[in-house]
Amino acid sequence: MVWLYFVIFLGACLAAGATGAIFPPGPWYRSLDKPRWTPPNWLFPVAWTTIYICMAAAGARAAISGQGTLALVLWSLQIALNGLWTPVFFGLRNIRGGMLVLSLLWLSVAVTMLALWQADWIAGLLFLPYLGWVSVAGALNLSVLRRNPETAANPPKLER
Amino acid sequence: MVWLYFVIFLGACLAAGATGAIFPPGPWYRSLDKPRWTPPNWLFPVAWTTIYICMAAAGARAAISGQGTLALVLWSLQIALNGLWTPVFFGLRNIRGGMLVLSLLWLSVAVTMLALWQADWIAGLLFLPYLGWVSVAGALNLSVLRRNPETAANPPKLER
Repeated sequence: MVWLYFVIFLGACLAAGATGAIFPPGPWYRSLDKPRWTPPNWLFPVAWTTIYICMAAAGARAAISGQGTLALVLWSLQIALNGLWTPVFFGLRNIRGGMLVLSLLWLSVAVTMLALWQADWIAGLLFLPYLGWVSVAGALNLSVLRRNPETAANPPKLER
Repeated sequence: MVWLYFVIFLGACLAAGATGAIFPPGPWYRSLDKPRWTPPNWLFPVAWTTIYICMAAAGARAAISGQGTLALVLWSLQIALNGLWTPVFFGLRNIRGGMLVLSLLWLSVAVTMLALWQADWIAGLLFLPYLGWVSVAGALNLSVLRRNPETAANPPKLER
C-alpha cells in the first residue's frame, strides 16, 4: 500500500510541477534585477525533482503510520498552493502576488512538516529540503520585489 | 477536528480555484466556436463555489471516519489536477492539453469518489456534483476541440 500512496502523491507533485513547464522563465524573468545569489535556472528542475520524491515519500509514510490524518489533510493544502505560485509569478508576472502565495506556501509547508513529524519523524525529515528550498525561493521573490519596485507595482497587462 | 479539516480542505480548494481568477475567460475564449449547451460564464464560479464546499466537507468526513487514508491521498491528487486545467486551457490556450488534463482530472475524481464512498457514503455522495460538473466540462472541452480544429492544432505562441 505504501507504494500505491507514493505513486499517487508523486502524481500530485507532477501535476503541481507541470505549471513550471507551462510557464518557463523567459525574457521577462531574465530582464528582472536579481540578487547575485540567485540559483541558476538549471538548478530549479533538479531541486524540485528531488523535493517531489521526498514529498511523496513523506506523504506515503504518514499514510501508513496510522496517525497521519492531519498531516494528510495539510499535504493537500500545500500541494494546491505549490501549483499556484508559478501561474501567479510567471503567468501573471505579478511579483507581489507571487510573494503572497509564497508566504502562504511557506507557512503551509512548515505546518505540514510539524504534523508529519508527529506522525512519523522520518516523514517530517523528508519535508526539510522542501522547507529549505521554499525559504530560498521566498527570499528570492522578496529580493526581486525590492529590486524591481516599478515592475512590482505595475504588473504588465497581459493579452487575454 | 472536523471543522479544522474542513477549513484546511477549503483553503486547498480556494488555492486551486484561484487559477480561475488568474486566467478568466476573455476574447480568445469568446472567439471559439462553442456548442449551444455551453453553460453561461456566470454559472462557472457559482458551480465551483458549491462544489468546493462539498469537496471540503467530503474530505473532512473521510478524515474523521478513521478509514479514509486512501481517500485522503487521492484527494491530494485530484486537487493538484484541478488547479492545472485553467493554466493549460486559458493560460496556454492549449485545447488539446486541456483535454488531457481534464481526462486525468475526471479519472482522479471518479476514483477519489469511490474511495470516499468506502470510508463514508455521505462523503462519496458529496463528490457527485463535482464528478457531474467535471463531466460537463470534459464534454465542453471535447466539443471545443472538435469545433476548432485549427486553433487546437496550433495553440498560439504566447509572449514569454
